Amino acid sequence: MNKKSNEGLTVKKEDFSEWFSQVIEKAEIVDLRLGLKGFIVKRAWGTRIIEKMYQLYEEELQKNKHQPVIMPSLIPESNLKKESEHVEGFNPEVFWLESQKGEERLALRPTSETLFTPMFKLWIRSHRDLPMKIYQKGSVFRLDTKATRPLIREREFQWIEAHDAFGTKEEAEKQVQEDIETTEKVMHQKFGIPFLPLKRPIWDKFAGAEYTIGSDVIMPDGKLIQQPSTHLMGQKFSKAFNAKFVDEKGNEEYLWTTAYGPAISRILVSVISVHGDNKGLVIPSLISPIQIIIIPIYKKENKEKIIKYAQKILNKLEGYRVEIDDRDFNTPGRKFNEWELKGVPFRIEVGEEELKKESITFFIRDIRKREQILLRDLSKIKLYEKEYNKRIINNADKFLESRIKECKTIDEIKKSIKEGKIVKTSFCSIEKEGLNCAEKIEKETGAGIRGILANKKELPKGKCIICKKDAKEVVYIGKSY
Amino acid sequence: MNKKSNEGLTVKKEDFSEWFSQVIEKAEIVDLRLGLKGFIVKRAWGTRIIEKMYQLYEEELQKNKHQPVIMPSLIPESNLKKESEHVEGFNPEVFWLESQKGEERLALRPTSETLFTPMFKLWIRSHRDLPMKIYQKGSVFRLDTKATRPLIREREFQWIEAHDAFGTKEEAEKQVQEDIETTEKVMHQKFGIPFLPLKRPIWDKFAGAEYTIGSDVIMPDGKLIQQPSTHLMGQKFSKAFNAKFVDEKGNEEYLWTTAYGPAISRILVSVISVHGDNKGLVIPSLISPIQIIIIPIYKKENKEKIIKYAQKILNKLEGYRVEIDDRDFNTPGRKFNEWELKGVPFRIEVGEEELKKESITFFIRDIRKREQILLRDLSKIKLYEKEYNKRIINNADKFLESRIKECKTIDEIKKSIKEGKIVKTSFCSIEKEGLNCAEKIEKETGAGIRGILANKKELPKGKCIICKKDAKEVVYIGKSY
Repeated sequence: MNKKSNEGLTVKKEDFSEWFSQVIEKAEIVDLRLGLKGFIVKRAWGTRIIEKMYQLYEEELQKNKHQPVIMPSLIPESNLKKESEHVEGFNPEVFWLESQKGEERLALRPTSETLFTPMFKLWIRSHRDLPMKIYQKGSVFRLDTKATRPLIREREFQWIEAHDAFGTKEEAEKQVQEDIETTEKVMHQKFGIPFLPLKRPIWDKFAGAEYTIGSDVIMPDGKLIQQPSTHLMGQKFSKAFNAKFVDEKGNEEYLWTTAYGPAISRILVSVISVHGDNKGLVIPSLISPIQIIIIPIYKKENKEKIIKYAQKILNKLEGYRVEIDDRDFNTPGRKFNEWELKGVPFRIEVGEEELKKESITFFIRDIRKREQILLRDLSKIKLYEKEYNKRIINNADKFLESRIKECKTIDEIKKSIKEGKIVKTSFCSIEKEGLNCAEKIEKETGAGIRGILANKKELPKGKCIICKKDAKEVVYIGKSY
Repeated sequence: MNKKSNEGLTVKKEDFSEWFSQVIEKAEIVDLRLGLKGFIVKRAWGTRIIEKMYQLYEEELQKNKHQPVIMPSLIPESNLKKESEHVEGFNPEVFWLESQKGEERLALRPTSETLFTPMFKLWIRSHRDLPMKIYQKGSVFRLDTKATRPLIREREFQWIEAHDAFGTKEEAEKQVQEDIETTEKVMHQKFGIPFLPLKRPIWDKFAGAEYTIGSDVIMPDGKLIQQPSTHLMGQKFSKAFNAKFVDEKGNEEYLWTTAYGPAISRILVSVISVHGDNKGLVIPSLISPIQIIIIPIYKKENKEKIIKYAQKILNKLEGYRVEIDDRDFNTPGRKFNEWELKGVPFRIEVGEEELKKESITFFIRDIRKREQILLRDLSKIKLYEKEYNKRIINNADKFLESRIKECKTIDEIKKSIKEGKIVKTSFCSIEKEGLNCAEKIEKETGAGIRGILANKKELPKGKCIICKKDAKEVVYIGKSY
C-alpha cells in the first residue's frame, strides 16, 4: 500500500473519464507504470475481482455442459489464414513471432476459432459426439495501433472463449440464444450490469461469422461498450477446416459452430463504471474479494480485547469473505476511506461501545448508511446483502432505461445523441442495402447503428428515417468505445 | 469421445515410456495432433485435473498470505536484460516478437522476475509494506530447441510463479523453507507425490539466483524430474532494478527476494506416472474432476427405474463430485474401462439387483476391488476415500524410499544408476570447487549431482568419492528428465 493508493479521488463521477482513470489506480485495480503500450499490470484487488468473475462465468458455462480445455497461446500462420474473411479481419491486429529456422511462422492468438475448429475435426466423428461444447479461459492479444486504454482497449486482455459444435443450424442458433441467456444470468443478475443484446448490422459482424450479437452496456457518459458477444459461425470455419460429422442417416455433413466471448477484464470496466460513485468502487457482493471488512477501533490500552472481539465476530460470519484490518499504522478513518474506495460492500466497526453493548456498527457501502446490529441479530446481514445487490441492479437497470430514447427524425437523433442517449428508431435494413443510410446517420450524428434486439422481435413503424423506404427493423444507435 | 480414446492401453506400465505416451492420449489428458512443435492441446479431462491442482495450490499460497496478480505475458527487452546472469541463462530460450515500428522489442515471458521486480520497486516504500508476497498463474514460454515431450518438456506450459520481497536475508531464507513446506503440503499430501528437496550445486542454479532448491520426484523408470523449485534471489534482481525500501532505522536498503515456481502441467506428469497402473490413471480424489462415477446397468424395459435409482444415489452423495454415465450407446463394460483408464477413484454400479437390495456395488480404482454397500451405509464412502488417498501416498513413498541407495565407490554408483536408483554419497562440495568431481561422475555414470537435502542437514562420512578430499556434503545423484 504505497502512499498514492491511500489518497481518495479528487474528482466526482460526473467527470467520468478522469474519475475512471483515478479510480482504477487508486483502488489498486491496475498499475499503468510498466510503460508498455497496451499492456498493464492487474494488481491484487483487481485480480481477485477478475478471479471471482471468472469463477461465476465458468460455473454457468459448466452448468450448460461446457467443458474446459487449454489451447496453445500461439497459432500457426496456415491455421489463421484458412478462413478468408477471418484472416482479412484479424490480420492487421496480429502479433507475430520472429520465425524459427525451418518452423512455421506463429501468431499470438487474437481469438482461437482456428485452433478449436481443427480439434473439432479430430474429436467429432458422428452425431453421437454432438453437441460438443468447450471453452478456454486466458489471455488474447490484439495489436491495436490506435490509442489503447486500460481495461477498455488493451493489447492483452483476459477472456473466456466458448466454441460449440452442432449437427444443425437450428441447434447452433439455439446456442446463440443460450449464450445471451448466460450473459443475462451472469453479467446482469450476478454482476448487476444490464445490457442490450443487439444483432449487429452485417457490416459490423465478427470476421468470419454469419452474424454477431453483441451485448451493449451503457457507460455513465452515455457511450456504449460491447460486452460478451456471441457469433453464429455457421459452416464457415467447418468448411475452411473440412470438419465434418456423420449424421443419423449416415451422411457426411459439415459442422455448425458458434462462439461466445466474455472478456472478463473488460466486463470489469462496466462493473467499475456502472456501480461506482464519488467515493470509489461499489462491488456486487458475489464478486467482491472481501464482502465484509471488520475495522477494530482501539487504543493501546484496549487493543487486545477489541481485536479479540473482532475475531469473535469474524468467526460468527461463516459463509462470507471477511477480513479484519488491524494494521496499526493506519487510523480507522483512513481505513474507512480505503475500503470504501475499493468498493467492499459492508464494513463492521467495533470499539469499546460495541463491545459493551454486544453489538456492531454495520456500514453499507452503496447508500453509505450505518446500522446498529446486536450480535444475536447478525443473521440480518443476509437481508442487507440481498437488498444491496437488488439496489445496485435496480439502479443500473433504471439508468439504462432512462437513456433509451425513441426518435422519429434525424434532428431528434442528433439532439439525443448529444445528450448521451441511446436512440431507438425505424430503419431500412441491417443487411448490405442499409449501409448507405447507416453511414449518413454516422456522419450526421457521430453515432453508429448498433443493431436490433436479438432476443425479442420489435416491429418497426413506418419508414426508414433516412431513405424513407419501408423500415424492416427497429435499430439502436449510439456512440461507442 | 472418438474411437481411439475408448481403446484401452496396449502396453504395461513396465514399458514406461510407451505407457506414458499412450495413457496421456487415451485418457484424454492431451491431444498431440495440432502439429506444432512443443505446443499441445490439453483436453477437457486433463484441463479439469489441472484446474483442481491450481485451486489447491492457490489456496495454500493464499493461506500463506500470497496475493494474486496478473502480469503481461510479454516482457520488454530492456527489462529482460537488466540482470546479467538471468539474461545469459534465459536468452537462448526466448521467443521474440516481430518488432513494431518505434516500439521496443518484446519477449514472450519465460519467467517473470523482470516484471515483478520493477513492480516491487513501485509498490514498496518502507518496511511497513513488507513482506510483499504475490503470485500469478498462467503460461510461460521457452524456446526449447531440443526434443520436446508432451507435458514433460513443452514450449508453453502452465505454472504458478510466486515472487516475494523481504527486508532481510533471514526472512527471505525462511520463505524458501516455507516454499518447500508448501510443496510438501500440496504436492505430497494432496497429490500424493513425495519428493527430495535438493539444494542444487552452484553450477545448476536458476539463472540469476543465489541458490536454487529443486523438488526432485522419481519416475517409474528411475529418472528424476524436477518439480517446484524455489530460489533465493537475494539482492541480485533488486540491485539490477534499483528496488529499495526504507527500514525501521530510516536507511535505504535493497530488497531481498525469492521466487517459487510450481509448474502445474509438469506436476501432472508425476501424478500420472507415479500413481498410474496397467489399466490407466489413478487420480488422487482431491484432484479428480469426478470422484465417483455412477454406471447404471439397464435394459430398455427397466431403464427408467434404474436411472431414477442412480439419480437417488447421486442426490445422497452430497459433497462429492459425482456424475452418472447414462450414454445409451456404450455398454457398461466399455464404460468401466473408460473411467478406469481416466483414473476416477470410485465407481458405483447399480442395476436390478442393487435396486432390489437397496444397495450399491462400489468399485475402488487403485486396488480394483468391489464392495457391496447398503444405501443406509453410504457414509462408509468417506472411509474408503480416506484409505484410498492414504494408500496411494504410502505406495509412492515406499517406491521413493526403495530407490535410494547409499554408495561408497564409483563402481557401486555406476551399478545403482544402471538399476534405476537414486544414489546418496559423500561428496567434496556443491560450490565451484566440486564441479570437476561432478563432471567425472557424470562422465562415468551418465547421472548428475542433483544436490543436497535442503530441509535437513545430513553429515557426510569420510572423503569425497572422487577426489578423496574431505567430503563436505551428502549429495544425491540421478539421471534426470
